[in-house]
Order: sequence, then C-alpha cells, then structure tokens
Amino acid sequence: MPAIVPADVTRGTIVAIGGGEDKLKEKHVLQKIVQLAGGPKARIGLIPTASSVAKDISAVYTRVFKELGAAETIVLDIASRGEAAEPRMLADLERATLVFFTGGDQLRLVAMLGGTPVVQSLRRMNASGVPIAGTSAGAGAVCQHMIARGRSGQMVNQRMVSLAPGLGLTNRIVVDQHFSQRHRVGRLFTAVALNPFLVGVGIDEDTAALLDGTNQLSVWGAGSVTVIDGGKLSYSDVPEIQGRAPAAALGLQVHVLTQGCTFDLVERTASAPPPRKAAPAPVVEHGLLPTPSNVASFIKPH
Amino acid sequence: MPAIVPADVTRGTIVAIGGGEDKLKEKHVLQKIVQLAGGPKARIGLIPTASSVAKDISAVYTRVFKELGAAETIVLDIASRGEAAEPRMLADLERATLVFFTGGDQLRLVAMLGGTPVVQSLRRMNASGVPIAGTSAGAGAVCQHMIARGRSGQMVNQRMVSLAPGLGLTNRIVVDQHFSQRHRVGRLFTAVALNPFLVGVGIDEDTAALLDGTNQLSVWGAGSVTVIDGGKLSYSDVPEIQGRAPAAALGLQVHVLTQGCTFDLVERTASAPPPRKAAPAPVVEHGLLPTPSNVASFIKPH
Repeated sequence: MPAIVPADVTRGTIVAIGGGEDKLKEKHVLQKIVQLAGGPKARIGLIPTASSVAKDISAVYTRVFKELGAAETIVLDIASRGEAAEPRMLADLERATLVFFTGGDQLRLVAMLGGTPVVQSLRRMNASGVPIAGTSAGAGAVCQHMIARGRSGQMVNQRMVSLAPGLGLTNRIVVDQHFSQRHRVGRLFTAVALNPFLVGVGIDEDTAALLDGTNQLSVWGAGSVTVIDGGKLSYSDVPEIQGRAPAAALGLQVHVLTQGCTFDLVERTASAPPPRKAAPAPVVEHGLLPTPSNVASFIKPH
Repeated sequence: MPAIVPADVTRGTIVAIGGGEDKLKEKHVLQKIVQLAGGPKARIGLIPTASSVAKDISAVYTRVFKELGAAETIVLDIASRGEAAEPRMLADLERATLVFFTGGDQLRLVAMLGGTPVVQSLRRMNASGVPIAGTSAGAGAVCQHMIARGRSGQMVNQRMVSLAPGLGLTNRIVVDQHFSQRHRVGRLFTAVALNPFLVGVGIDEDTAALLDGTNQLSVWGAGSVTVIDGGKLSYSDVPEIQGRAPAAALGLQVHVLTQGCTFDLVERTASAPPPRKAAPAPVVEHGLLPTPSNVASFIKPH
C-alpha cells in the first residue's frame, strides 16, 4: 500500500517511462527527470537492481544525468536483500531528491526489494514529496499490481497476462511499457477486465506518464500513453473462459493521450490540451492593415 | 447509399467475415452462410471478382457450399465492368438467395463493380431481404466507407489508414478484417477518430459480424469482433497532426464481443449473452434430498 501522505504535503510525482528513452540526442524525457529532481540541485538515487548489467547501465545514466546538469547521481547498486537493509544504503537513499529505477527484469527487481527497508523508505519519501521514476521494468514495478509477463497482440484471453505484486507506490494504475512497439494492448485490456478497479496505462517508448500528487496523469515525450478505463465495464467473461479462447469485454473506455493531454484518475476523465495561443499578431505587408473584410487573410492557420 | 427498404420488408442481413474462415473441418461460419441463404433451398451467388485466382476460389466455395447442403452456387465471375452490366449476369444474380463476395483485393473489387448495374441490383436485393456476405476484402468492400490500405500496430496517426468509397451496402460501419491476426486496432482507432459517425468493426479470422435488418450486430465464429465507437469522442487531433507523429483520441469506447454478445448500432450499446440455463436439476445421491441447509452442495457451479 502507498504510505499515508501527511496533511500539509503533496505526494511526489510518480514517473513511469515506457522504456527506450532517448539518451543521446534531445533527451527530452530524462531532461524532465532532472528537472523534477531539482535541476542543478538534483541528487538522483539510481537503483539498477532490475538490470543484469547494473554497473554498465549505472554508468550510462550517471553520464547522461551529469550532461543534463544534475548535481549528483547516487548509485544504489543493491544486489541482495541484505544490502537493501544496510544503514549505509538507506542513508544514501534518503539523500536523493528523486529515485530512478532502471529497466531490466521486473520480477528480479521485486524479488530483491519487496518488503525491504529500502522500499519502506521509498514509500515514506514519496509520501513526503520525493518523486519516484522508473523506466521499462522499473516503470511496471512501481505499481502495487504489476504485469509480470504476457503475450503481444490485441486479443483478450486468460493467457494474455500474468500479474504479480509490485513495489506498491501506487495502487491506482497498472502500467505496461514498450506499449505500441510491442503490441501490448490486448494484455492491458485483459488486465483491466480482470479487475476494473485498476486503470491501465500503456506507455510508448521514449514517453513518460507522470502521475502527480493530486492523481492527475499527464504525458511527456515523443509517443502516446493509452489509458484503458474499465470503470464502465458492463460485462466480461475473462475469469470464466479458459486458456487462449477469446473472451469478451464490453464497455472499455480508451483514451490515447499525447503530450498536453491529461487524465484525472479521481474523476476518470480525459482532457484535451489547453487551446493553443492565439495566432501571432498579423504581419503588415504591402502597407495593408487588417480590416473586417480582409482579416482572414492575415490570420495564419495554426 | 444503401437502397431504401420498403415499409413491409426487413433489409437482408449483411455478413462480414474476417477472412480465413474454416473450409475443411467444422465450417462453422460457412454453415451460417448456407443457413442464412435458405439451407437446402440456398442458391448462393458467388462473386470472386476481388480475387486474382477467381476460377480456383470459385471451385473451392462451390464444393464447400455443396458439402454444407446448399442447392446451388451461382458463380458470377465478373472480370470487367462490361460484364457487370450484362443482362445474363443480372438475371443470374437475381436468382440468388444470398450473395457472397470472396476475398482478394478490395480496390480491384470496387474498381470493377462500383456504379455498375450489378451493384444497383445488389442494393435492391438487400433492401428487399436478400442477405449479402463477404469475407476478407469482400467484407471490407460491402461498406460505403472502406479501408483501402493501412499499417499494422496500435498507434493512432494519419499514416495508419487510407479510406476509399466501397460498394455502399451499409453506411453505419467501417469494417476491418484479419483484425487481431494482423494487429489492426490502431488503423481502426484512426479511421473512427477521423469520422466518429462511423462505428469501427474489427473482425477476427474465422469469425463473422452479422448486421441484421434492425441494425443489431451479432457475432458468429471462433474469434472476437471488436466494436470501436467514437460517438463519445471528446477530442482528437488526427486531422491536424502530420505524418506518422502520434495523435490523440480521447473518449473511444471499445467492446470486445464474442459469440453471444450483441451491439445495437442505433443505441450504440453492447449487450452480454443472455444468462445461461439454470443448473441441471440436483442429482439425488446416497438417498439425500436437497433441504434448505444442504441445497448449495447439490447445485453444481456452472
């Protein structure tokens, strides 16, 4: 369960990245991470535990966060459950202004960290305002209900998805990553049909879903975030239909969000980007000034 | 435009099959076709024009329909626009109790038949009660708005889909075929976002969507039929976002139907299968009879 948020504090933003975020060019998504961590004052706690190449991946992120102006990257290379209880590790963790989980294997991550003092600290830190981010497996694992494995495709059936308990920083959403790239809409439909309390959040590569302390979901990055809301599901027989036989799911609501769109997890409503700024002031050419009859030609389409 | 239905007649059912229907074993879907055509009185008008191997495919269907008990298969091998106006062809067509379009290339089919007397006859026949069926390309082409080509995947963007005018037997739905098998949910999301008047109907292989004369959609076959309803779409920028950049679509409703589920195209509501029959009468074992206190153990879960 997420920790209780003190009355005068807003919970830190949870940032779930769909994997494959750009680390070489614009670094749009990782720039947002550094900004949320405090920009030049950022001390990013990096947990590479999901990865089988923890040292290498830590070096990559340390370099990128430095390029993006972070003050420090604190690598928390937890490779055993014992290390996840060490006072030295906890002291390092608690210096962080944002904690970032790398990709890798979400089952490895949860098996190593689940129920340890590190996760207890993380929940308290998030409740007191520290943002928690994860990419790929690290994004899936921040949720209480985590997709452990599944099949690609768009079908709905029992074999599409297996869920497992995650690290529990939020219980409102179930995240899926590499969403469009690996054709995962079927497994997220299925996960939501199995428990419509959960809102499915499918995140494309190089794209982040940001869940702020007031439970508003927004999008940052190059791709889309697909919200699958089963709140109005009227019928599904996924629990009854065995194996890979197709199951029904009636009344799913789907919102394909891009940067600028938001989803309110309390009201379960999606909102369009705010209207764009008005067209720039008309350019006066050839000495003409806009008049009621020619004004249209001065306003550029936008 | 679909022809006007006379006041005392119900329009014939339109049957859109997602392609790949079983022709060797159970033949569940083609059995339904023969039944709709009148069973032992069935005279099926077969139009193989979409196919580049019209003679071979006609032989296959003629054999299968015979095996399934149809009285006759009338092959209408229209290979030019001229043939689609021949009195002999029209006389053959009008003997049919159901007309069936094979798969192939929907653009070839529409280019050959669009605006010909054959299509005019088809519309009149359907309005007066004759069912019209199509599989694969033949299913797409029955609609007024037809998916001409597209990309696989689940993304929403302008490049996902191109529409073209179809044969116009129904203007309520836009059909996509081989739906789950070829990962076509993105192109149907996009088609619906481009014009939310249309209800998207994505049909799996070996599965039929049946649109009856009262505009009730039902499912017959092994897979699922995915209905994408844009009637409550609150926002999409597909018309504005250029090329393959991801576009937003908020408020899509998705219903994954399997056999037994229905969708009312007038009310735009999905319905679950009717409740199953009550549990069988309790079996009396060991001389026990059900009493209020032990009745639960007599009722098998179903």
